[in-house]
Amino acid sequence: MRKNYLLTPGPTPLPPQVMEAMARPIIHHRTPQFQEILIEATEGIKYVFQTSGDVFILASSGTGAMEAAVINLLSPGDTALLIQGGKFGERWTEICKAYGINAEVLDVEWGKAVDFKDIEKRLKANPNIKVVFTTHCETSTGVVNDIEAIGNVVKNTHAVLVVDAISGLGAIDLKTDAWGCDLVVSGSQKGLMLPPGLGFISVSAKAWKMIEASKSVRYYFDLRKSKKAIDKNDTPFTPAITLIIALVEALRIIKQDGLENIFRRHRKMADATRAAMKALGLELFAPTAASDVVTSVKAPVGIDGEKLVKTMRDTYGVTIAGGQDELKGKVFRIAHMGFIEEFDIIAGISCLEKVLTQMGYKFQMGSGVKAAEEIFLK
Amino acid sequence: MRKNYLLTPGPTPLPPQVMEAMARPIIHHRTPQFQEILIEATEGIKYVFQTSGDVFILASSGTGAMEAAVINLLSPGDTALLIQGGKFGERWTEICKAYGINAEVLDVEWGKAVDFKDIEKRLKANPNIKVVFTTHCETSTGVVNDIEAIGNVVKNTHAVLVVDAISGLGAIDLKTDAWGCDLVVSGSQKGLMLPPGLGFISVSAKAWKMIEASKSVRYYFDLRKSKKAIDKNDTPFTPAITLIIALVEALRIIKQDGLENIFRRHRKMADATRAAMKALGLELFAPTAASDVVTSVKAPVGIDGEKLVKTMRDTYGVTIAGGQDELKGKVFRIAHMGFIEEFDIIAGISCLEKVLTQMGYKFQMGSGVKAAEEIFLK
Repeated sequence: MRKNYLLTPGPTPLPPQVMEAMARPIIHHRTPQFQEILIEATEGIKYVFQTSGDVFILASSGTGAMEAAVINLLSPGDTALLIQGGKFGERWTEICKAYGINAEVLDVEWGKAVDFKDIEKRLKANPNIKVVFTTHCETSTGVVNDIEAIGNVVKNTHAVLVVDAISGLGAIDLKTDAWGCDLVVSGSQKGLMLPPGLGFISVSAKAWKMIEASKSVRYYFDLRKSKKAIDKNDTPFTPAITLIIALVEALRIIKQDGLENIFRRHRKMADATRAAMKALGLELFAPTAASDVVTSVKAPVGIDGEKLVKTMRDTYGVTIAGGQDELKGKVFRIAHMGFIEEFDIIAGISCLEKVLTQMGYKFQMGSGVKAAEEIFLK
Repeated sequence: MRKNYLLTPGPTPLPPQVMEAMARPIIHHRTPQFQEILIEATEGIKYVFQTSGDVFILASSGTGAMEAAVINLLSPGDTALLIQGGKFGERWTEICKAYGINAEVLDVEWGKAVDFKDIEKRLKANPNIKVVFTTHCETSTGVVNDIEAIGNVVKNTHAVLVVDAISGLGAIDLKTDAWGCDLVVSGSQKGLMLPPGLGFISVSAKAWKMIEASKSVRYYFDLRKSKKAIDKNDTPFTPAITLIIALVEALRIIKQDGLENIFRRHRKMADATRAAMKALGLELFAPTAASDVVTSVKAPVGIDGEKLVKTMRDTYGVTIAGGQDELKGKVFRIAHMGFIEEFDIIAGISCLEKVLTQMGYKFQMGSGVKAAEEIFLK
């Protein structure tokens, strides 16, 4: 017997309704039957995005949706401001550079949130900036950026604001319309509680004007094609049928729970996880801007973070995430997003305590679990 | 009660093992557990492609893999020869034009196969042609092209041969290496008996040289990234985990049955379908080059093909395909590919007989089914 517990920042565990939906006999996509599903999926995803604008569903991973954002908005030679501060912020820069965009980088220390005033300064200093690319929750560091404050800065300029909400959407608040997010991208395997394979992209009226003017070459990710198709309740190319059927199930759960309750659940799980880490004498990697979807923790002195993650996973079946790129071995990350609840967090902390003990780290056994329990009791 | 029967050229019905695999709890993709799955999937897909070269698995639909072929091989301003003759042949042209490729079109009458000698002539006449884009089975017309003969022509030139094998792979013979196919693209929802959402792409040594020289911009579909990742049993971006796990199940079935037996089964289903259409007094749309994966049939005089397809689907639950683009209403298409067997074909023909009768078409009831039965008995 081997039981697996998944506490990773994507994929998250899948609700039984979602798993069941994927096991159903498949249907054809150019039928009224699938059209109904696509309509429900599109309406439901708008609720999660908190937008009344278009949201397109792509057959790709989140990075495909990021590429779609870049090539649909910008033409080669255009200037963009890129907020870095982690692996996924850097991905925006990589994509922009690949497509010949003039990349103005705003470097943020890993583990810190961006200061919206720095964005304001850069926008004032360079009126050529057409797009500001940001990350809502930077999965690699566990940092959450203040998108509302950034939106307030960008909305008064001619630039559009693009938000990578891949790991945050449906888990922490993101008011696409109210906060002035012109284009938001996301993926299926995080707050939406689905397997990876779907990309999402919302587009504001301000962004549409830029999309129509873009001279970048594009075909598969051409949002003009998506727009034309969605107006007929269709997709330009064969959609990932099974994942969209599963999406409808996930959206029903989300709608029934209500976004506010879901955000509250994530906040509580994050509070409990952070309290547990403190009780264990561990240090958060991003104490000043910790997100409610994933908690990054510094590996204590003498403990190899990679080995910790491997032992939890390969010996005990509890999968958390290690550090990426420059944080490899230095941090571990406990996700509390998607189809994860209080007692999953307790299980994860308990396994962490077990392996830390075995690795020789000194602390009071049970103190992490106790601290989390106290938060959950509130 | 409503039972659905699926006889469409993608998606095809799913084997129970595939449906079950997608209902399993998900695992994380950056783990030794998923690496094992990716290795089995990659080895298995090479068997289906009949290649010892690299085959990459993309999180996209088949069109994404087609775009990957174009942008990885060619630079803007390069010349390609495009074999048209249906909706999907035309898609190659559309993609090439979108990416600034100088598109030399070889137009083939819809319903006919391309003559390899015409390709030979065009290659001789224009030594600038770097890539020949072809379609193995043109799903929109039901035509199969003689890829072996085309391969023999192209392999002696400096051009590379690209084959869209989206609807044929794993259903009709395609010897990637032996026939000199330098780059073959496919999708998951046809002969591989999976939902849509995966693209596949094989690359020969000759094609790799061109890929390394291409100046086209690319990121998500950059095969150089895929190559770097696959050498470490990884993917450059989050893979469509669930679909890859399901792929392993489908590949096990394919390996157990053996490609030759699978091809024989498809041939027999096609023979039976064609015999049935003849017995019903119906005319094939592509009599001289009919593929073994989908049979296109002309709607008889006085019968609206669209209405026929709709009635079969919406009244009786039997989904076949209508005509696309210029064939809309003029043909209907019965697929016999993937997880479809003899008695599914009988069911489809029986429903066709029922609806044709109701629509006033005159023929001897049961004659189509009988003709098919006789073929299957052999």
